[in-house]
Amino acid sequence: MKDFNRNELLEEITKSVILELQKHNLIQSNERKSHVPVSISARHIHLSQEHIDILFGQGHQLTKFKDISQPGQFACNEKVTLQGPKGTIENVRVLAPIRPKTQVEVARTDARKLGVNPPVRESGNVAGSAPITLIGPEGVVELQEGCIIADRHIHMTPEDARSFGVVDKQKVSVLVEGEKAGVMGKVTIRVRPNYALDMHIDTDDANAFGLNGTEQLKLILE
Amino acid sequence: MKDFNRNELLEEITKSVILELQKHNLIQSNERKSHVPVSISARHIHLSQEHIDILFGQGHQLTKFKDISQPGQFACNEKVTLQGPKGTIENVRVLAPIRPKTQVEVARTDARKLGVNPPVRESGNVAGSAPITLIGPEGVVELQEGCIIADRHIHMTPEDARSFGVVDKQKVSVLVEGEKAGVMGKVTIRVRPNYALDMHIDTDDANAFGLNGTEQLKLILE
Repeated sequence: MKDFNRNELLEEITKSVILELQKHNLIQSNERKSHVPVSISARHIHLSQEHIDILFGQGHQLTKFKDISQPGQFACNEKVTLQGPKGTIENVRVLAPIRPKTQVEVARTDARKLGVNPPVRESGNVAGSAPITLIGPEGVVELQEGCIIADRHIHMTPEDARSFGVVDKQKVSVLVEGEKAGVMGKVTIRVRPNYALDMHIDTDDANAFGLNGTEQLKLILE
Repeated sequence: MKDFNRNELLEEITKSVILELQKHNLIQSNERKSHVPVSISARHIHLSQEHIDILFGQGHQLTKFKDISQPGQFACNEKVTLQGPKGTIENVRVLAPIRPKTQVEVARTDARKLGVNPPVRESGNVAGSAPITLIGPEGVVELQEGCIIADRHIHMTPEDARSFGVVDKQKVSVLVEGEKAGVMGKVTIRVRPNYALDMHIDTDDANAFGLNGTEQLKLILE
């Protein structure tokens, strides 16, 4: 009877400890372990039709350079020059489709060169972000806001989200191995039926973690 | 008696679980929690006297621009241009004192611009590292090896090491909070009696983790 109670107690404690550890994400449950492919986003720009008209001429239509990982989106042949108080960066590629609001995505390294101080934001959230000047072949746009450092994020479908055990807008961490190993925190989950599973990081994150965009990285819950 | 055994067992299991968790660094012991100041190392170069002679003229003595965090080391007024297959970077500062072997420390972002592929190395370990060309006011040095990406590292005294519970050459991790939160892994502990407590990271790590060099970061054991 004593042995029985001892084993019962041991089992109870073990389960309780494991559950508590999972709750605080000190360990992961096996079902949730999985990996995501990573892509590196160089600085780029999303344009409104109004700004395309100014930069490239009235009624200009963006032309495809090549498809990118998300269905329906593509890199364009069109490029602009970014100008800030401290410097310029040429040949910054435009991504399609057009957006309601123009958005410039740079890494912190780019921002220092330009002399701008963009906040880390989710794509689309440009209110109060940094001002910057865009120079195209046909004109100049002085944005009062629109320059951001994109947050680390992972695109996925609702099916992916279920298999990872995550939900839209959740923040997760991602484990990196190798000589510049570490953990990328505050990675935003973005769920839409037409998304392809892909993690997007900027060039600073890629360079700091020694990634070249061919890796599969392990998602860990925060 | 049963209750006594139960409590004893509970205590025993609890201690055993805590010890095991500490061993695998799933939790930290209170005694080991502590923080280190961080400094950001921009690209720089350490020169041998032979190379100083070529770059700045025979018998040239390095002149102090300002002291840096480690006692006896200083940034010099002297600067060189780095040249790689794909580009050049001007005004790269020389650090004193002189070294037996010339060593160029760049971030991955710099390496991409130069078109070189340096390994991540501890300072002083340049065997088989990347070739690069140095251009000074008086001459040019074509290094066959010597260009590295410095590993993340923490300088400390033996007293610091004891209070952190670490030893020389140990690899630790460092926690970063904020909008670009995460964990920097494979951080090398460097212990010498004359070291000042300071963590050194390069500009890529600083930019990826949103650090400006004024932070105190939490050391966590790997």
